[in-house]
Amino acid sequence: MSAPHSTSQIRVRYGETDQMGVAYHANYLVWCEIGRTDLIRSLGPSYAEMEQQGLRLAVAEASVRYRAPARYDDVLSVETRLEKVQSRFVTFAYRVLLDEPAGPGDAGTLLATATTVLVALDDQGRTRVMPGHVREIFEQLAVRT
Amino acid sequence: MSAPHSTSQIRVRYGETDQMGVAYHANYLVWCEIGRTDLIRSLGPSYAEMEQQGLRLAVAEASVRYRAPARYDDVLSVETRLEKVQSRFVTFAYRVLLDEPAGPGDAGTLLATATTVLVALDDQGRTRVMPGHVREIFEQLAVRT
Amino acid sequence: MSAPHSTSQIRVRYGETDQMGVAYHANYLVWCEIGRTDLIRSLGPSYAEMEQQGLRLAVAEASVRYRAPARYDDVLSVETRLEKVQSRFVTFAYRVLLDEPAGPGDAGTLLATATTVLVALDDQGRTRVMPGHVREIFEQLAVRT
Amino acid sequence: MSAPHSTSQIRVRYGETDQMGVAYHANYLVWCEIGRTDLIRSLGPSYAEMEQQGLRLAVAEASVRYRAPARYDDVLSVETRLEKVQSRFVTFAYRVLLDEPAGPGDAGTLLATATTVLVALDDQGRTRVMPGHVREIFEQLAVRT
Repeated sequence: MSAPHSTSQIRVRYGETDQMGVAYHANYLVWCEIGRTDLIRSLGPSYAEMEQQGLRLAVAEASVRYRAPARYDDVLSVETRLEKVQSRFVTFAYRVLLDEPAGPGDAGTLLATATTVLVALDDQGRTRVMPGHVREIFEQLAVRT
Repeated sequence: MSAPHSTSQIRVRYGETDQMGVAYHANYLVWCEIGRTDLIRSLGPSYAEMEQQGLRLAVAEASVRYRAPARYDDVLSVETRLEKVQSRFVTFAYRVLLDEPAGPGDAGTLLATATTVLVALDDQGRTRVMPGHVREIFEQLAVRT
Repeated sequence: MSAPHSTSQIRVRYGETDQMGVAYHANYLVWCEIGRTDLIRSLGPSYAEMEQQGLRLAVAEASVRYRAPARYDDVLSVETRLEKVQSRFVTFAYRVLLDEPAGPGDAGTLLATATTVLVALDDQGRTRVMPGHVREIFEQLAVRT
Repeated sequence: MSAPHSTSQIRVRYGETDQMGVAYHANYLVWCEIGRTDLIRSLGPSYAEMEQQGLRLAVAEASVRYRAPARYDDVLSVETRLEKVQSRFVTFAYRVLLDEPAGPGDAGTLLATATTVLVALDDQGRTRVMPGHVREIFEQLAVRT
Protein backbone atom coordinates (compact mmCIF):
# COMPACT_ATOMS: atom_id res chain seq x y z
CA MET A 1 0.00 0.00 0.00
CA SER A 2 2.56 2.51 -1.19
CA ALA A 3 0.01 5.26 -1.76
CA PRO A 4 -2.76 5.00 0.83
CA HIS A 5 -5.44 7.47 -0.01
CA SER A 6 -6.64 8.17 3.46
CA THR A 7 -4.99 7.99 6.87
CA SER A 8 -7.14 8.21 10.00
CA GLN A 9 -5.84 8.62 13.53
CA ILE A 10 -7.51 6.73 16.35
CA ARG A 11 -6.65 6.67 20.04
CA VAL A 12 -7.51 3.35 21.73
CA ARG A 13 -10.28 3.88 24.29
CA TYR A 14 -10.36 2.29 27.72
CA GLY A 15 -13.66 0.60 26.91
CA GLU A 16 -12.05 -0.94 23.83
CA THR A 17 -9.64 -2.99 25.93
CA ASP A 18 -10.49 -6.41 27.31
CA GLN A 19 -9.22 -8.33 30.29
CA MET A 20 -6.22 -9.58 28.31
CA GLY A 21 -5.05 -5.97 28.53
CA VAL A 22 -5.21 -5.32 24.78
CA ALA A 23 -7.77 -3.86 22.38
CA TYR A 24 -10.64 -6.29 21.79
CA HIS A 25 -10.47 -7.78 18.31
CA ALA A 26 -13.94 -6.71 17.11
CA ASN A 27 -12.95 -3.05 17.45
CA TYR A 28 -10.67 -3.30 14.43
CA LEU A 29 -13.75 -3.48 12.22
CA VAL A 30 -15.00 -0.28 13.82
CA TRP A 31 -11.65 1.40 13.19
CA CYS A 32 -11.62 0.20 9.58
CA GLU A 33 -15.02 1.75 9.14
CA ILE A 34 -13.66 5.05 10.41
CA GLY A 35 -10.91 4.79 7.79
CA ARG A 36 -13.44 3.95 5.08
CA THR A 37 -15.72 6.78 6.13
CA ASP A 38 -12.85 9.25 6.07
CA LEU A 39 -11.94 8.05 2.59
CA ILE A 40 -15.52 8.26 1.37
CA ARG A 41 -15.97 11.69 2.97
CA SER A 42 -13.16 12.88 0.74
CA LEU A 43 -15.52 12.22 -2.19
CA GLY A 44 -17.43 15.27 -1.02
CA PRO A 45 -21.12 15.86 -1.45
CA SER A 46 -21.41 13.20 -4.15
CA TYR A 47 -21.72 10.46 -1.58
CA ALA A 48 -24.38 12.18 0.52
CA GLU A 49 -26.41 12.75 -2.65
CA MET A 50 -25.92 9.09 -3.48
CA GLU A 51 -27.49 8.12 -0.15
CA GLN A 52 -30.35 10.51 -0.76
CA GLN A 53 -30.97 8.72 -4.05
CA GLY A 54 -31.44 5.53 -2.05
CA LEU A 55 -28.05 3.90 -2.55
CA ARG A 56 -26.52 2.26 0.51
CA LEU A 57 -23.23 0.43 0.94
CA ALA A 58 -23.39 -2.48 3.38
CA VAL A 59 -20.54 -4.71 4.52
CA ALA A 60 -20.80 -8.06 2.71
CA GLU A 61 -17.45 -9.55 3.73
CA ALA A 62 -14.83 -8.61 6.27
CA SER A 63 -11.54 -10.21 7.17
CA VAL A 64 -8.80 -9.15 9.56
CA ARG A 65 -5.33 -10.49 10.28
CA TYR A 66 -4.08 -9.51 13.71
CA ARG A 67 -0.29 -9.22 13.93
CA ALA A 68 0.43 -7.36 17.16
CA PRO A 69 -1.84 -6.05 19.89
CA ALA A 70 -2.97 -2.45 20.30
CA ARG A 71 -3.12 -1.17 23.87
CA TYR A 72 -5.03 1.46 25.79
CA ASP A 73 -4.12 5.02 24.84
CA ASP A 74 -1.98 3.97 21.87
CA VAL A 75 -2.51 6.26 18.91
CA LEU A 76 -3.09 4.20 15.78
CA SER A 77 -3.22 5.16 12.16
CA VAL A 78 -5.57 3.40 9.78
CA GLU A 79 -4.53 3.56 6.13
CA THR A 80 -7.45 2.91 3.82
CA ARG A 81 -7.24 2.18 0.14
CA LEU A 82 -9.95 1.45 -2.39
CA GLU A 83 -8.82 -1.79 -3.93
CA LYS A 84 -11.44 -2.82 -6.47
CA VAL A 85 -14.67 -1.52 -7.98
CA GLN A 86 -17.25 -3.82 -9.54
CA SER A 87 -20.78 -3.14 -10.69
CA ARG A 88 -22.28 -4.05 -7.31
CA PHE A 89 -19.25 -4.26 -5.03
CA VAL A 90 -16.43 -2.07 -3.72
CA THR A 91 -13.43 -3.59 -1.94
CA PHE A 92 -11.42 -1.64 0.61
CA ALA A 93 -8.06 -2.65 2.11
CA TYR A 94 -6.71 -1.40 5.44
CA ARG A 95 -3.48 -1.33 7.38
CA VAL A 96 -3.61 -0.52 11.08
CA LEU A 97 -0.30 0.83 12.36
CA LEU A 98 0.97 1.81 15.77
CA ASP A 99 1.55 5.52 15.42
CA GLU A 100 2.35 6.69 18.95
CA PRO A 101 2.66 3.89 21.49
CA ALA A 102 1.38 4.83 24.95
CA GLY A 103 3.81 2.40 26.54
CA PRO A 104 6.54 0.10 25.22
CA GLY A 105 6.23 -0.60 21.49
CA ASP A 106 7.70 0.79 18.31
CA ALA A 107 6.04 3.53 16.30
CA GLY A 108 5.31 2.25 12.81
CA THR A 109 4.65 -1.37 13.83
CA LEU A 110 2.00 -2.99 11.64
CA LEU A 111 -0.74 -4.21 14.00
CA ALA A 112 -3.29 -5.57 11.54
CA THR A 113 -4.36 -5.75 7.93
CA ALA A 114 -7.95 -6.07 6.80
CA THR A 115 -10.21 -6.03 3.79
CA THR A 116 -13.93 -5.42 3.50
CA VAL A 117 -16.20 -5.91 0.53
CA LEU A 118 -19.18 -3.57 0.43
CA VAL A 119 -22.29 -4.26 -1.58
CA ALA A 120 -24.58 -1.64 -3.10
CA LEU A 121 -28.16 -1.89 -1.78
CA ASP A 122 -31.31 0.00 -2.69
CA ASP A 123 -33.51 1.48 0.01
CA GLN A 124 -35.32 -1.85 0.31
CA GLY A 125 -32.07 -3.61 1.15
CA ARG A 126 -31.80 -5.40 -2.21
CA THR A 127 -28.51 -5.73 -4.09
CA ARG A 128 -28.34 -3.27 -6.96
CA VAL A 129 -25.97 -2.05 -9.63
CA MET A 130 -24.28 1.23 -8.75
CA PRO A 131 -25.25 4.20 -10.95
CA GLY A 132 -22.60 4.97 -13.57
CA HIS A 133 -21.49 8.26 -12.05
CA VAL A 134 -21.04 6.67 -8.61
CA ARG A 135 -18.98 3.87 -10.06
CA GLU A 136 -16.86 6.44 -11.85
CA ILE A 137 -16.18 8.30 -8.63
CA PHE A 138 -15.01 5.11 -6.98
CA GLU A 139 -12.92 4.15 -10.00
CA GLN A 140 -11.08 7.44 -9.94
CA LEU A 141 -10.40 6.88 -6.27
CA ALA A 142 -9.05 3.43 -7.02
CA VAL A 143 -6.82 4.82 -9.72
CA ARG A 144 -5.52 7.63 -7.57
CA THR A 145 -4.45 5.36 -4.71
CA MET B 1 -37.80 -3.86 45.08
CA SER B 2 -39.78 -6.63 46.72
CA ALA B 3 -41.82 -7.43 43.63
CA PRO B 4 -39.68 -6.94 40.52
CA HIS B 5 -41.81 -7.36 37.48
CA SER B 6 -39.20 -8.69 35.16
CA THR B 7 -35.94 -10.57 35.67
CA SER B 8 -33.50 -10.93 32.78
CA GLN B 9 -30.45 -13.14 32.74
CA ILE B 10 -27.24 -11.92 31.14
CA ARG B 11 -23.86 -13.61 30.85
CA VAL B 12 -20.94 -11.17 30.82
CA ARG B 13 -19.19 -11.28 27.44
CA TYR B 14 -15.44 -11.22 26.96
CA GLY B 15 -15.69 -8.05 24.92
CA GLU B 16 -17.55 -6.40 27.81
CA THR B 17 -14.51 -6.64 30.09
CA ASP B 18 -11.79 -4.00 30.20
CA GLN B 19 -8.17 -4.15 31.16
CA MET B 20 -9.04 -3.77 34.84
CA GLY B 21 -10.41 -7.32 34.46
CA VAL B 22 -14.02 -6.37 35.19
CA ALA B 23 -17.07 -5.48 33.09
CA TYR B 24 -16.74 -1.98 31.62
CA HIS B 25 -19.10 0.44 33.33
CA ALA B 26 -21.00 1.63 30.23
CA ASN B 27 -22.31 -1.91 29.66
CA TYR B 28 -24.63 -1.65 32.65
CA LEU B 29 -26.79 0.75 30.63
CA VAL B 30 -26.98 -1.86 27.87
CA TRP B 31 -27.98 -4.52 30.39
CA CYS B 32 -30.62 -2.23 31.92
CA GLU B 33 -32.05 -1.76 28.46
CA ILE B 34 -32.32 -5.53 28.08
CA GLY B 35 -34.25 -5.61 31.36
CA ARG B 36 -36.48 -2.76 30.24
CA THR B 37 -37.09 -4.38 26.86
CA ASP B 38 -38.00 -7.66 28.50
CA LEU B 39 -40.44 -5.83 30.77
CA ILE B 40 -41.96 -3.89 27.88
CA ARG B 41 -42.16 -7.04 25.77
CA SER B 42 -44.44 -8.47 28.46
CA LEU B 43 -46.92 -5.76 27.43
CA GLY B 44 -47.48 -7.77 24.29
CA PRO B 45 -48.45 -6.38 20.92
CA SER B 46 -49.65 -3.10 22.43
CA TYR B 47 -46.13 -1.70 22.42
CA ALA B 48 -45.32 -2.66 18.84
CA GLU B 49 -48.58 -1.01 17.75
CA MET B 50 -47.60 2.01 19.78
CA GLU B 51 -44.37 2.30 17.80
CA GLN B 52 -46.27 1.93 14.56
CA GLN B 53 -48.41 4.85 15.64
CA GLY B 54 -45.25 6.91 15.83
CA LEU B 55 -44.61 6.84 19.57
CA ARG B 56 -40.99 6.32 20.64
CA LEU B 57 -39.46 6.14 24.10
CA ALA B 58 -35.97 7.64 24.34
CA VAL B 59 -33.66 7.71 27.34
CA ALA B 60 -33.73 11.21 28.87
CA GLU B 61 -31.84 10.48 32.09
CA ALA B 62 -29.78 7.58 33.32
CA SER B 63 -27.92 7.01 36.56
CA VAL B 64 -26.02 4.03 37.87
CA ARG B 65 -24.44 3.24 41.23
CA TYR B 66 -21.74 0.59 40.97
CA ARG B 67 -21.31 -1.47 44.15
CA ALA B 68 -19.26 -4.50 43.14
CA PRO B 69 -17.66 -5.52 39.85
CA ALA B 70 -19.08 -8.07 37.40
CA ARG B 71 -16.53 -10.35 35.77
CA TYR B 72 -16.23 -12.28 32.54
CA ASP B 73 -18.62 -15.22 32.30
CA ASP B 74 -20.58 -14.27 35.44
CA VAL B 75 -24.29 -14.78 34.99
CA LEU B 76 -26.16 -11.68 36.15
CA SER B 77 -29.81 -11.07 36.73
CA VAL B 78 -31.31 -7.68 36.02
CA GLU B 79 -34.51 -6.94 37.93
CA THR B 80 -36.53 -4.21 36.26
CA ARG B 81 -39.41 -2.36 37.82
CA LEU B 82 -41.57 0.41 36.40
CA GLU B 83 -41.34 3.09 39.05
CA LYS B 84 -43.36 6.05 37.88
CA VAL B 85 -45.59 7.06 34.98
CA GLN B 86 -46.17 10.69 34.00
CA SER B 87 -47.83 12.19 30.96
CA ARG B 88 -44.59 12.37 28.97
CA PHE B 89 -42.17 10.28 31.09
CA VAL B 90 -41.76 6.75 32.38
CA THR B 91 -39.20 5.92 35.08
CA PHE B 92 -37.65 2.47 35.38
CA ALA B 93 -35.55 1.17 38.29
CA TYR B 94 -33.04 -1.69 38.05
CA ARG B 95 -31.06 -3.95 40.32
CA VAL B 96 -28.18 -5.90 38.81
CA LEU B 97 -27.35 -9.00 40.87
CA LEU B 98 -24.66 -11.64 40.62
CA ASP B 99 -26.62 -14.75 39.86
CA GLU B 100 -23.97 -17.37 39.10
CA PRO B 101 -20.40 -16.19 39.67
CA ALA B 102 -17.92 -17.65 37.19
CA GLY B 103 -15.14 -17.40 39.76
CA PRO B 104 -14.98 -16.28 43.39
CA GLY B 105 -17.98 -14.20 44.49
CA ASP B 106 -21.30 -14.82 46.20
CA ALA B 107 -24.48 -15.54 44.29
CA GLY B 108 -27.04 -12.89 45.14
CA THR B 109 -24.55 -10.04 45.61
CA LEU B 110 -25.98 -6.70 44.51
CA LEU B 111 -23.62 -5.32 41.85
CA ALA B 112 -25.41 -2.16 40.83
CA THR B 113 -28.60 -0.17 41.01
CA ALA B 114 -29.81 2.15 38.28
CA THR B 115 -32.70 4.29 37.15
CA THR B 116 -33.60 5.61 33.74
CA VAL B 117 -36.21 8.16 32.76
CA LEU B 118 -37.68 7.68 29.30
CA VAL B 119 -39.43 10.43 27.41
CA ALA B 120 -42.19 9.92 24.85
CA LEU B 121 -41.28 11.28 21.41
CA ASP B 122 -43.25 11.53 18.21
CA ASP B 123 -41.77 10.35 14.92
CA GLN B 124 -40.14 13.77 14.45
CA GLY B 125 -38.27 13.38 17.74
CA ARG B 126 -40.40 15.95 19.60
CA THR B 127 -41.58 15.41 23.18
CA ARG B 128 -45.24 14.38 23.26
CA VAL B 129 -47.93 13.30 25.68
CA MET B 130 -48.49 9.53 25.68
CA PRO B 131 -51.87 8.43 24.36
CA GLY B 132 -54.29 7.56 27.16
CA HIS B 133 -54.35 3.83 26.47
CA VAL B 134 -50.54 3.61 26.47
CA ARG B 135 -50.33 5.46 29.75
CA GLU B 136 -52.92 3.09 31.20
CA ILE B 137 -50.85 0.08 30.18
CA PHE B 138 -47.80 1.51 31.91
CA GLU B 139 -49.83 2.45 34.98
CA GLN B 140 -51.12 -1.08 35.37
CA LEU B 141 -47.56 -2.31 35.12
CA ALA B 142 -46.47 0.13 37.80
CA VAL B 143 -49.30 -1.00 40.04
CA ARG B 144 -48.55 -4.67 39.56
CA THR B 145 -44.90 -4.38 40.52
CA MET C 1 -21.64 -28.20 9.31
CA SER C 2 -23.83 -31.24 9.71
CA ALA C 3 -22.86 -31.85 13.31
CA PRO C 4 -22.29 -28.52 15.05
CA HIS C 5 -20.88 -29.14 18.47
CA SER C 6 -22.31 -26.11 20.19
CA THR C 7 -25.33 -23.93 19.55
CA SER C 8 -25.68 -20.62 21.36
CA GLN C 9 -28.77 -18.44 21.41
CA ILE C 10 -28.42 -14.67 21.20
CA ARG C 11 -31.10 -11.99 21.14
CA VAL C 12 -30.09 -8.90 19.16
CA ARG C 13 -29.79 -5.91 21.52
CA TYR C 14 -31.02 -2.42 20.71
CA GLY C 15 -27.52 -1.03 21.13
CA GLU C 16 -26.29 -3.54 18.54
CA THR C 17 -28.37 -1.96 15.78
CA ASP C 18 -27.14 0.92 13.67
CA GLN C 19 -28.96 3.64 11.78
CA MET C 20 -29.47 1.35 8.80
CA GLY C 21 -31.92 -0.47 11.10
CA VAL C 22 -29.92 -3.73 11.22
CA ALA C 23 -27.34 -5.25 13.54
CA TYR C 24 -23.95 -3.54 13.13
CA HIS C 25 -21.48 -5.81 11.37
CA ALA C 26 -18.76 -5.82 14.05
CA ASN C 27 -21.15 -7.49 16.50
CA TYR C 28 -20.96 -10.77 14.60
CA LEU C 29 -17.41 -11.21 15.91
CA VAL C 30 -18.75 -10.75 19.44
CA TRP C 31 -21.47 -13.33 18.80
CA CYS C 32 -18.95 -15.78 17.35
CA GLU C 33 -16.91 -15.38 20.49
CA ILE C 34 -19.95 -16.31 22.57
CA GLY C 35 -20.31 -19.45 20.45
CA ARG C 36 -16.63 -20.24 20.83
CA THR C 37 -16.75 -19.64 24.59
CA ASP C 38 -19.76 -21.91 24.94
CA LEU C 39 -17.95 -24.60 22.99
CA ILE C 40 -14.78 -24.20 25.04
CA ARG C 41 -16.76 -24.17 28.28
CA SER C 42 -17.99 -27.63 27.35
CA LEU C 43 -14.36 -28.74 27.78
CA GLY C 44 -14.90 -28.31 31.48
CA PRO C 45 -12.25 -27.39 34.03
CA SER C 46 -9.43 -28.37 31.66
CA TYR C 47 -9.56 -24.99 29.96
CA ALA C 48 -9.57 -22.93 33.14
CA GLU C 49 -6.55 -24.90 34.34
CA MET C 50 -4.94 -24.25 30.99
CA GLU C 51 -5.32 -20.49 31.52
CA GLN C 52 -3.89 -20.81 35.02
CA GLN C 53 -0.86 -22.48 33.48
CA GLY C 54 -0.35 -19.35 31.43
CA LEU C 55 -1.82 -20.44 28.09
CA ARG C 56 -4.01 -17.90 26.30
CA LEU C 57 -5.84 -18.13 23.00
CA ALA C 58 -5.94 -14.88 21.05
CA VAL C 59 -7.70 -14.17 17.76
CA ALA C 60 -5.12 -14.14 14.97
CA GLU C 61 -7.48 -14.07 11.99
CA ALA C 62 -11.19 -13.47 11.58
CA SER C 63 -13.39 -13.41 8.54
CA VAL C 64 -17.12 -13.02 8.13
CA ARG C 65 -19.48 -13.31 5.17
CA TYR C 66 -22.72 -11.43 5.70
CA ARG C 67 -25.68 -12.91 3.83
CA ALA C 68 -28.79 -11.39 5.34
CA PRO C 69 -29.26 -8.77 8.07
CA ALA C 70 -30.16 -9.48 11.69
CA ARG C 71 -32.60 -7.08 13.27
CA TYR C 72 -33.40 -5.81 16.75
CA ASP C 73 -34.96 -8.43 19.00
CA ASP C 74 -34.36 -11.30 16.54
CA VAL C 75 -33.27 -14.46 18.31
CA LEU C 76 -30.20 -15.88 16.56
CA SER C 77 -28.45 -19.18 16.94
CA VAL C 78 -24.70 -19.42 16.52
CA GLU C 79 -23.43 -22.87 15.59
CA THR C 80 -19.75 -23.29 16.42
CA ARG C 81 -17.52 -26.06 15.22
CA LEU C 82 -13.85 -26.69 15.85
CA GLU C 83 -12.45 -27.05 12.37
CA LYS C 84 -8.72 -27.61 12.66
CA VAL C 85 -6.08 -28.05 15.36
CA GLN C 86 -2.41 -27.31 14.77
CA SER C 87 0.50 -27.07 17.17
CA ARG C 88 0.02 -23.34 17.74
CA PHE C 89 -3.38 -22.63 16.14
CA VAL C 90 -7.02 -23.65 16.49
CA THR C 91 -9.55 -22.80 13.78
CA PHE C 92 -13.25 -22.36 14.56
CA ALA C 93 -16.10 -22.10 12.04
CA TYR C 94 -19.45 -20.47 12.70
CA ARG C 95 -22.89 -20.26 11.19
CA VAL C 96 -25.24 -17.53 12.40
CA LEU C 97 -28.88 -18.40 11.78
CA LEU C 98 -32.13 -16.55 12.30
CA ASP C 99 -33.84 -18.63 14.93
CA GLU C 100 -36.90 -16.57 15.90
CA PRO C 101 -37.43 -13.47 13.77
CA ALA C 102 -38.86 -10.54 15.74
CA GLY C 103 -40.51 -9.22 12.57
CA PRO C 104 -40.76 -10.43 8.97
CA GLY C 105 -38.15 -13.06 8.08
CA ASP C 106 -37.95 -16.83 7.97
CA ALA C 107 -36.75 -18.92 10.87
CA GLY C 108 -33.71 -20.91 9.80
CA THR C 109 -32.34 -18.31 7.38
CA LEU C 110 -28.54 -18.32 7.27
CA LEU C 111 -27.42 -14.80 8.15
CA ALA C 112 -23.66 -15.17 8.17
CA THR C 113 -20.77 -17.60 8.16
CA ALA C 114 -17.44 -16.91 9.80
CA THR C 115 -14.12 -18.44 10.72
CA THR C 116 -11.55 -17.41 13.29
CA VAL C 117 -8.03 -18.69 13.81
CA LEU C 118 -6.81 -18.53 17.39
CA VAL C 119 -3.16 -18.61 18.33
CA ALA C 120 -1.73 -19.98 21.56
CA LEU C 121 0.17 -17.37 23.56
CA ASP C 122 2.15 -17.59 26.77
CA ASP C 123 1.57 -15.12 29.58
CA GLN C 124 4.05 -12.72 27.96
CA GLY C 125 1.99 -12.66 24.78
CA ARG C 126 4.44 -14.73 22.73
CA THR C 127 3.30 -17.48 20.36
CA ARG C 128 3.80 -20.91 21.89
CA VAL C 129 3.14 -24.56 21.17
CA MET C 130 0.09 -25.90 22.98
CA PRO C 131 0.83 -28.52 25.64
CA GLY C 132 0.12 -32.06 24.43
CA HIS C 133 -2.89 -32.65 26.66
CA VAL C 134 -4.52 -29.40 25.57
CA ARG C 135 -4.02 -30.23 21.94
CA GLU C 136 -5.55 -33.65 22.58
CA ILE C 137 -8.63 -32.08 24.13
CA PHE C 138 -9.11 -29.87 21.09
CA GLU C 139 -8.47 -32.76 18.73
CA GLN C 140 -11.15 -34.86 20.36
CA LEU C 141 -13.51 -31.94 20.01
CA ALA C 142 -12.65 -31.65 16.33
CA VAL C 143 -13.25 -35.35 15.83
CA ARG C 144 -16.56 -35.34 17.66
CA THR C 145 -18.04 -32.53 15.57
CA MET D 1 -18.72 25.41 33.66
CA SER D 2 -17.22 28.74 32.73
CA ALA D 3 -13.64 27.42 32.77
CA PRO D 4 -13.59 23.84 31.55
CA HIS D 5 -10.15 22.42 32.04
CA SER D 6 -10.18 19.99 29.16
CA THR D 7 -12.01 19.86 25.87
CA SER D 8 -11.99 16.65 23.81
CA GLN D 9 -13.24 16.30 20.26
CA ILE D 10 -15.13 13.19 19.23
CA ARG D 11 -16.68 12.29 15.90
CA VAL D 12 -19.75 10.05 16.22
CA ARG D 13 -19.02 6.63 14.69
CA TYR D 14 -21.45 4.68 12.54
CA GLY D 15 -21.39 1.80 15.00
CA GLU D 16 -22.39 4.20 17.76
CA THR D 17 -25.76 4.92 16.14
CA ASP D 18 -28.85 2.80 16.77
CA GLN D 19 -31.92 2.16 14.70
CA MET D 20 -33.55 5.35 15.98
CA GLY D 21 -30.92 7.09 13.82
CA VAL D 22 -29.14 8.74 16.75
CA ALA D 23 -26.12 7.92 18.93
CA TYR D 24 -26.94 5.15 21.38
CA HIS D 25 -27.21 6.49 24.92
CA ALA D 26 -24.58 4.24 26.55
CA ASN D 27 -21.87 5.79 24.35
CA TYR D 28 -22.02 9.05 26.27
CA LEU D 29 -20.31 7.30 29.19
CA VAL D 30 -17.55 6.23 26.81
CA TRP D 31 -17.19 9.80 25.55
CA CYS D 32 -17.10 11.15 29.09
CA GLU D 33 -14.31 8.72 29.86
CA ILE D 34 -12.36 10.10 26.90
CA GLY D 35 -12.82 13.57 28.36
CA ARG D 36 -11.75 12.38 31.79
CA THR D 37 -8.72 10.58 30.38
CA ASP D 38 -7.67 13.66 28.45
CA LEU D 39 -7.97 15.72 31.61
CA ILE D 40 -6.02 13.18 33.68
CA ARG D 41 -3.37 12.86 30.96
CA SER D 42 -2.71 16.57 31.41
CA LEU D 43 -1.48 15.62 34.91
CA GLY D 44 1.53 14.15 33.17
CA PRO D 45 3.59 11.23 34.40
CA SER D 46 2.24 11.57 37.95
CA TYR D 47 -0.83 9.54 37.09
CA ALA D 48 1.01 6.70 35.39
CA GLU D 49 3.28 6.45 38.43
CA MET D 50 0.19 6.43 40.60
CA GLU D 51 -1.09 3.39 38.72
CA GLN D 52 2.28 1.69 39.06
CA GLN D 53 2.00 2.22 42.81
CA GLY D 54 -1.23 0.22 42.71
CA LEU D 55 -3.79 3.03 42.78
CA ARG D 56 -6.76 2.64 40.44
CA LEU D 57 -9.74 4.91 39.86
CA ALA D 58 -12.99 3.05 39.17
CA VAL D 59 -16.38 4.53 38.30
CA ALA D 60 -18.60 4.33 41.40
CA GLU D 61 -21.50 6.47 40.15
CA ALA D 62 -22.49 7.84 36.78
CA SER D 63 -25.42 9.95 35.69
CA VAL D 64 -26.30 11.50 32.37
CA ARG D 65 -29.02 13.92 31.26
CA TYR D 66 -29.73 13.70 27.56
CA ARG D 67 -31.00 16.95 26.06
CA ALA D 68 -30.67 16.57 22.30
CA PRO D 69 -29.52 13.69 20.14
CA ALA D 70 -26.09 13.32 18.55
CA ARG D 71 -26.03 11.92 15.02
CA TYR D 72 -23.62 9.98 12.86
CA ASP D 73 -20.59 11.99 11.79
CA ASP D 74 -21.37 14.92 14.10
CA VAL D 75 -18.26 16.30 15.73
CA LEU D 76 -18.84 16.70 19.46
CA SER D 77 -16.82 18.42 22.12
CA VAL D 78 -16.72 17.04 25.63
CA GLU D 79 -15.81 19.59 28.30
CA THR D 80 -14.54 17.92 31.44
CA ARG D 81 -14.12 19.56 34.80
CA LEU D 82 -12.89 18.14 38.10
CA GLU D 83 -15.66 19.09 40.48
CA LYS D 84 -14.77 17.69 43.87
CA VAL D 85 -11.92 15.84 45.57
CA GLN D 86 -12.43 13.78 48.70
CA SER D 87 -10.11 11.35 50.47
CA ARG D 88 -11.40 8.36 48.50
CA PHE D 89 -13.46 9.94 45.71
CA VAL D 90 -13.05 12.31 42.79
CA THR D 91 -16.08 13.79 41.03
CA PHE D 92 -15.97 14.86 37.39
CA ALA D 93 -18.59 16.89 35.52
CA TYR D 94 -19.07 16.88 31.75
CA ARG D 95 -20.85 18.87 29.08
CA VAL D 96 -21.26 17.28 25.65
CA LEU D 97 -21.77 19.90 22.95
CA LEU D 98 -22.48 19.71 19.25
CA ASP D 99 -19.36 21.20 17.74
CA GLU D 100 -19.76 20.59 13.99
CA PRO D 101 -23.11 19.11 13.00
CA ALA D 102 -22.89 16.69 10.08
CA GLY D 103 -26.44 17.55 9.06
CA PRO D 104 -29.07 19.97 10.34
CA GLY D 105 -28.40 21.21 13.87
CA ASP D 106 -26.75 24.20 15.48
CA ALA D 107 -23.09 24.27 16.47
CA GLY D 108 -22.83 24.89 20.19
CA THR D 109 -26.04 23.05 21.14
CA LEU D 110 -25.75 21.36 24.53
CA LEU D 111 -26.49 17.66 23.95
CA ALA D 112 -25.93 16.22 27.40
CA THR D 113 -24.54 16.86 30.85
CA ALA D 114 -23.09 14.17 33.06
CA THR D 115 -21.25 13.54 36.29
CA THR D 116 -19.20 10.56 37.41
CA VAL D 117 -17.81 9.77 40.85
CA LEU D 118 -14.60 7.76 40.81
CA VAL D 119 -13.38 5.80 43.78
CA ALA D 120 -9.76 5.03 44.59
CA LEU D 121 -9.02 1.31 44.73
CA ASP D 122 -5.89 -0.61 45.65
CA ASP D 123 -4.61 -3.37 43.39
CA GLN D 124 -6.91 -5.85 45.16
CA GLY D 125 -9.95 -3.78 44.22
CA ARG D 126 -10.53 -2.46 47.76
CA THR D 127 -11.47 1.15 48.47
CA ARG D 128 -8.51 3.11 49.73
CA VAL D 129 -7.50 6.63 50.71
CA MET D 130 -5.59 8.45 47.98
CA PRO D 131 -1.96 9.23 48.82
CA GLY D 132 -1.49 12.85 49.86
CA HIS D 133 0.47 13.90 46.80
CA VAL D 134 -2.16 12.43 44.44
CA ARG D 135 -4.94 14.23 46.26
CA GLU D 136 -2.92 17.44 45.98
CA ILE D 137 -2.60 17.01 42.24
CA PHE D 138 -6.34 16.59 41.89
CA GLU D 139 -7.02 19.52 44.22
CA GLN D 140 -4.87 21.82 42.14
CA LEU D 141 -6.77 20.69 39.09
CA ALA D 142 -10.06 21.41 40.83
CA VAL D 143 -8.85 24.85 41.81
CA ARG D 144 -7.58 25.69 38.37
CA THR D 145 -10.88 24.90 36.62
